[in-house]
Amino acid sequence: MTPPGGPPLRQLGENQLVARFRDLAGPHLSGGVVVGPGDDAAVLRAPGGRLLLLTCDMMVEDIHFRRAWAAPEQIGWKAMAQNLSDIAAMGGEPAAAVASLSAPGDLPSDFLDRIAQGLISAASEYGASLVGGDLVGSPGPIAVDVAVIGWVEQDHLLLRRGARPGDAILVTGSLGASATGLALLEQGLADDPSPEAVQALHAHRQPVPRLAEARAIAASRLATAMMDLSDGLADDLPRLCAESGVGARVFARRLPIHPACLALASRLGKDSLALAITGGEDYQLLFTCPPDAVDAVAAVVSSAAGTSVTVIGDITGERGVSFLDPDGRVIEPGAGFDHFAPKTNR
Amino acid sequence: MTPPGGPPLRQLGENQLVARFRDLAGPHLSGGVVVGPGDDAAVLRAPGGRLLLLTCDMMVEDIHFRRAWAAPEQIGWKAMAQNLSDIAAMGGEPAAAVASLSAPGDLPSDFLDRIAQGLISAASEYGASLVGGDLVGSPGPIAVDVAVIGWVEQDHLLLRRGARPGDAILVTGSLGASATGLALLEQGLADDPSPEAVQALHAHRQPVPRLAEARAIAASRLATAMMDLSDGLADDLPRLCAESGVGARVFARRLPIHPACLALASRLGKDSLALAITGGEDYQLLFTCPPDAVDAVAAVVSSAAGTSVTVIGDITGERGVSFLDPDGRVIEPGAGFDHFAPKTNR
Repeated sequence: MTPPGGPPLRQLGENQLVARFRDLAGPHLSGGVVVGPGDDAAVLRAPGGRLLLLTCDMMVEDIHFRRAWAAPEQIGWKAMAQNLSDIAAMGGEPAAAVASLSAPGDLPSDFLDRIAQGLISAASEYGASLVGGDLVGSPGPIAVDVAVIGWVEQDHLLLRRGARPGDAILVTGSLGASATGLALLEQGLADDPSPEAVQALHAHRQPVPRLAEARAIAASRLATAMMDLSDGLADDLPRLCAESGVGARVFARRLPIHPACLALASRLGKDSLALAITGGEDYQLLFTCPPDAVDAVAAVVSSAAGTSVTVIGDITGERGVSFLDPDGRVIEPGAGFDHFAPKTNR
Repeated sequence: MTPPGGPPLRQLGENQLVARFRDLAGPHLSGGVVVGPGDDAAVLRAPGGRLLLLTCDMMVEDIHFRRAWAAPEQIGWKAMAQNLSDIAAMGGEPAAAVASLSAPGDLPSDFLDRIAQGLISAASEYGASLVGGDLVGSPGPIAVDVAVIGWVEQDHLLLRRGARPGDAILVTGSLGASATGLALLEQGLADDPSPEAVQALHAHRQPVPRLAEARAIAASRLATAMMDLSDGLADDLPRLCAESGVGARVFARRLPIHPACLALASRLGKDSLALAITGGEDYQLLFTCPPDAVDAVAAVVSSAAGTSVTVIGDITGERGVSFLDPDGRVIEPGAGFDHFAPKTNR
């Protein structure tokens, strides 16, 4: 057998790996596939006029979570919630999930039960059932992979593609809470009793998929594109723009930064704006709509879920995503918190 | 946070872990779930009269495969094939799949591409599309988790439950080829050029899900219960019996032992019957039907797929599964090849 070559995986970014995967899988998609790899979930034709959604997401110990940093129930909850968020991002309703777990043989069985309880709690909370799974021994870290199916009405489906120049860019809720929670954990501040720290830690450990908000946005038929913010605005907005063949301007001062992020960032040696732009795992919805639809869509989301939505910028015809400071100067969010490097002093 | 306790996972058998999972998930299943955890795939109501199937299976490096023992394409093929086999076992047709891969950052990217190609080949071969996935870095072994959805007509659905006392027990094809291939690899005989070794190695590395056979059995509506043989007859038949609330007698001399297994077992220091009974990963179908339906079901499988089916025993009202030698004495297959201990000399 020829040994496989090519650059090691760590040299390829996630976008590049997704592109390779699309190139490989694309030519083999059957006629029943409406949307294949590359969106938050795949979309399949189904009998009876609704579309079927399918997505998966894996969490690996010491990459996505640490045993010391979250209760097993929270690990399970988060593994399920991030998948439910992908269903939400398509405008859909989750129906059922399966979960595969790999774990070392010396793991106490209660740990696994509690992961399962977290998976089940999150699924039940949002109307889905955990219907099956696989458990395998592993010499390595715990890994939890969840696949979720959901349904969406054909005319409610929202994709990453569809944003048009001039559209407003909106987010639900606020940004940066999860990244603040992660920073607290990284700095050994998990026991900080302040309400802001408790909020941030909870946001990181037990994120909320925005299903009611997404369903309201989808049912309004006012949005042109949508995705969830799992990797952070700086990574995710360019993906939405690339799929839509457009660019974007984001006005930093409009970003709805989470109060806990604002309160704690400087104590953590972080910039609250950096946390809000580059921090992942907020699972808020990022979507676009024509400017004259903003008030109407804000009203339906508020009415359905009590959640605010905020216009953070607009879609441009010119490619490229810019983050602009209050003086209109371009700032450069890096790939991670520590690489966030404003081009100008602020 | 309370540290989780309970016995370590390695002390609990797979059946016990599945039972715990069913106890946890069962009370939370929604009305849309026809069959929850515990069968080869979950079954969900869907619009339009067909049922939706959902299953997942994970493979972990050095537990389920070794890099030195299979090409990356074969690893991908097998990860997909075992899931397709679960869809087959329900009488269904696979439609779409998603795959999550975790891999260390130093893995050459071609390795990943070739795993993806194997996943895609297997899916395409059996009418399914690989529609999405997730790729995550991991400090540990490569893990490939696949989830597959499929469709089945309501009156074609076959479950593990449904076998009745007096039913004949049948298997498609022959048994022991995959276990023989594994034994060759374990003993460093991967380069054995004999046709039997090539066949056994291929059966182990690139197993065939029995979709055409399963569809024919399901469409005949003659079978009363079905599952696939992934863990071996000695482990799997008791599961079918437990679900059906019955027992079984298997006549060892009737077992269709694969010619490669017969030819190579003794050279490998193995007993061919032991390999056929306890060896996993043949992915043949195990099913039951009334005795007077055997000829008809054999005819439809032969006609649809050119595959033989063999009656290997019968279902009993009394619980317990017995394997009987040619003299009618009970033999005791152990949990693995090396623990197979006949009670009598043969």
